[in-house]
Amino acid sequence: MFEGAKTGRKVSKSVFKKEEQQLRTLLLNKQFELKKAKIPLIVIVAGMEGAGKSEVVNRLDEWLDSSGIQVHAFWDPSDEERDRPRYWRFWRTMPPKGQIAILFGGWYMQPIEQRYFNQCDDSALERELRRIRDFERMLVEDGTLVVKFWYHLDEATQRERLKERAQHSENARWKMLPTKKSHVEEHYDKFEHVAEQVVRHTDSYHAPWNVVEATDENYGQLTTGKILLQIIEQRLNAVGDDPKGAGGYPMGDIDLPDDPDARLTVLDNLDMSASIKKDDYNKQLKSLQTELHELVWLAYNQRRSVVMAFEGVDAGGKGGAIRRCTEAIDARLYRTISVGAPTDEEHAHHYLWRFWRHIPRDGYMTIFDRSWYGRVLVERVEGFTPASRWRPAYMEINNFEEQLSEHGVIVLKFWLQITKEEQLERFQSRQDTPYKAHKITEEDWRNREKWDDYCMAVNDMVKHTSTEQAPWHLIPGNDKRYARIEVLSTVVNTLRRALNGSSGRK
Amino acid sequence: MFEGAKTGRKVSKSVFKKEEQQLRTLLLNKQFELKKAKIPLIVIVAGMEGAGKSEVVNRLDEWLDSSGIQVHAFWDPSDEERDRPRYWRFWRTMPPKGQIAILFGGWYMQPIEQRYFNQCDDSALERELRRIRDFERMLVEDGTLVVKFWYHLDEATQRERLKERAQHSENARWKMLPTKKSHVEEHYDKFEHVAEQVVRHTDSYHAPWNVVEATDENYGQLTTGKILLQIIEQRLNAVGDDPKGAGGYPMGDIDLPDDPDARLTVLDNLDMSASIKKDDYNKQLKSLQTELHELVWLAYNQRRSVVMAFEGVDAGGKGGAIRRCTEAIDARLYRTISVGAPTDEEHAHHYLWRFWRHIPRDGYMTIFDRSWYGRVLVERVEGFTPASRWRPAYMEINNFEEQLSEHGVIVLKFWLQITKEEQLERFQSRQDTPYKAHKITEEDWRNREKWDDYCMAVNDMVKHTSTEQAPWHLIPGNDKRYARIEVLSTVVNTLRRALNGSSGRK
Repeated sequence: MFEGAKTGRKVSKSVFKKEEQQLRTLLLNKQFELKKAKIPLIVIVAGMEGAGKSEVVNRLDEWLDSSGIQVHAFWDPSDEERDRPRYWRFWRTMPPKGQIAILFGGWYMQPIEQRYFNQCDDSALERELRRIRDFERMLVEDGTLVVKFWYHLDEATQRERLKERAQHSENARWKMLPTKKSHVEEHYDKFEHVAEQVVRHTDSYHAPWNVVEATDENYGQLTTGKILLQIIEQRLNAVGDDPKGAGGYPMGDIDLPDDPDARLTVLDNLDMSASIKKDDYNKQLKSLQTELHELVWLAYNQRRSVVMAFEGVDAGGKGGAIRRCTEAIDARLYRTISVGAPTDEEHAHHYLWRFWRHIPRDGYMTIFDRSWYGRVLVERVEGFTPASRWRPAYMEINNFEEQLSEHGVIVLKFWLQITKEEQLERFQSRQDTPYKAHKITEEDWRNREKWDDYCMAVNDMVKHTSTEQAPWHLIPGNDKRYARIEVLSTVVNTLRRALNGSSGRK
Repeated sequence: MFEGAKTGRKVSKSVFKKEEQQLRTLLLNKQFELKKAKIPLIVIVAGMEGAGKSEVVNRLDEWLDSSGIQVHAFWDPSDEERDRPRYWRFWRTMPPKGQIAILFGGWYMQPIEQRYFNQCDDSALERELRRIRDFERMLVEDGTLVVKFWYHLDEATQRERLKERAQHSENARWKMLPTKKSHVEEHYDKFEHVAEQVVRHTDSYHAPWNVVEATDENYGQLTTGKILLQIIEQRLNAVGDDPKGAGGYPMGDIDLPDDPDARLTVLDNLDMSASIKKDDYNKQLKSLQTELHELVWLAYNQRRSVVMAFEGVDAGGKGGAIRRCTEAIDARLYRTISVGAPTDEEHAHHYLWRFWRHIPRDGYMTIFDRSWYGRVLVERVEGFTPASRWRPAYMEINNFEEQLSEHGVIVLKFWLQITKEEQLERFQSRQDTPYKAHKITEEDWRNREKWDDYCMAVNDMVKHTSTEQAPWHLIPGNDKRYARIEVLSTVVNTLRRALNGSSGRK
């Protein structure tokens, strides 16, 4: 889930200084209002080792009035704590009404570490996740505002950070659990795997995660402060006493720092100049299509079904890419579902219902041209659906795809990206070509105006829904041929791996 | 959890006929209003084999306008269904807005049966329970009203029902899965055990269970209709579009049928005439206290802690019973916490916080004179806490006690009952005795007026919170000596069993 938190976002010193001043004042005001409104606030600061969690906590402590704050870390339990049910130590730290508790790792680090070190099995972890969700829900229903931050950073940065700390060990050693250091360093992937499981299953309606990129401390801290401010404001403005109406996530777009580098997205990391020569294209196309043809029959014989979702910017080349796949597949084995406005019947149901309908039988394939991700893309950006409804869709979608995977469905998700300039060209060319003119509408031009909003939405989408069993594939599509080969080879590779296929290639 | 659904409640034919007429008209009206309001309704009818589930469904179908209802049973999955992820079959049955779906067993029967037949392990069950909760929450957040009924009956009645059915097999066989009949008949306890696990963990904020006693069909059906009516009315009257504000349980007292037998509670089954001779009392008291003394030291040495909660009607003899225990225990090993109005500090926290504080260290004992059950007793009956807050407390309390048990804490819960006449005598005697007069207040007289409401609240409490790891012990207390011996011997037996104690007795 964490790809969207590895974009390289950062904030310059000068922007940080300027925005920090303003933020501090606002945060302090809100803290007093929270106190007056008697709302207890729990802030959970969790994340990767080396992500600067203690620096974040120190910063919050500096920004806020420390008389109303208690900071708690949960190191090895004391005698007192070991002698009682596990959650006793957390109950001890509950802030009274109007106060703030900042919890280092909260109730998350123990299950993550135990699973990571194989000290507990999946069954114990499942039970623990249920417990966490019940516990947080109970606090939220009681009026507590629970805000959870997960700080993430890429492997290279983590290694560097930990090395640096080890060198300055005199004053930095206390930041790490020494026995665990080498493990974490060496086993980034394993830790991330466990963390994804835990974060994904506790990204709940009432206490969702705010995943923050932590490669740059300025960015991480400023964003934390801004998100926190936004959430507190929402809560103070919530009508009536329904705390659910203003949960632990920003209901609107996040007010990112005013620095272009703070607005980078996963799409900025794509090499948009990628291209392929025509000859190579023709050769590869033929070979990939041949293999795809065989693999889809293999899937049929193995009774494995395939679900593909194609998303992308308008005129990004979804249609062309889909056709290059379907050309190679026996027409009896696949269906393409073009997702437009819902029918009356579909509209009368939950938004996922229309997609469940088209889940293929074992051995068959459904290709969705646009998909359930509309919920967190167009519906979000265009404001068709309030944040209180689209934000939980990340979890709903993860659960949906998890069910597909568990049944053995192979899930493939593509995002086709083109540059804004390329899109303009394509729009104009479509308008000028009689048989293509119908493909370009007022709506396309309107969407284009919200280009940046869509990029942000895509980033959040990838951050929350790119899972191990159903990762996002982001395809640079300025060169149509390149994009098609990328899509085809991803499909072929995924199927081959999933079917353990012996279709002649390796 | 199901003791509260084995009280022998029933409704006479004449009352049934009279109330049915009225109920039908009201239900039908509400159905049309639901349709107009475009609210989809899912009714889950689940429960013990032989509890008359199909009769309930038939009745609802008769009462309501069948054009807006679809009934679905989930027998063995079809080819179509087996070929897709498991929930596909449930998605097929989702009612569109304004329509009603009645689901036989819903998504519950499969996990219960699989666990019952050992076809899945606890880990798979935990995952399934998480899935169910996520699924229901998603539907509820989307505006669906989810109402769940669990029909329960005692073992003897079940055996009789199943025998009867077998005899009239020509027209009744279809009601049972034939291969399972014998199992269910023979293994009532095992089935109930699994059912308790599933029901307890899915008794959620958003879609709680309505447990209905099903020994008498008239009672079961009438009560179902009345609960359903009440829930639909609530939902239609809910302000704004917050569906959570009117969840799948009646927010006020249930409008029970107007038949005294329909209002029986677990307390009515107590033998209030039970008594013990003075000589026997003295002998037993001494012997039990001696053993208790030893057992508490044994618990200390085994580092097992004990939590006891005493509840009961005013002047029911809690104090006396507690003293007979504590007299026998080394003063260093126990604490008694008398639970009155919360302190300022306690008031500024979640209601469970004040009890967590006093959870003893391993090896020690805490005795609560009144407890966390105040939430669902006095706070409910006196209206201090709205139903939207006290109703979820059943689940919250079960989770709390589950955590205690998991840590190894021995949990004991007592309800001390006396008759209304006996209470009057004790009140008067207290008023007349100078050194006891302070024990009787205006509040006690006020509570007395709500006698029946408290009985109902106790019944619901037992129904939802008497679990295998922390069962309720209901003690008839008209004879103080009898009650004290009962309490002491329950404590001694429980400790002996838990500690596998060899304190000389069996």
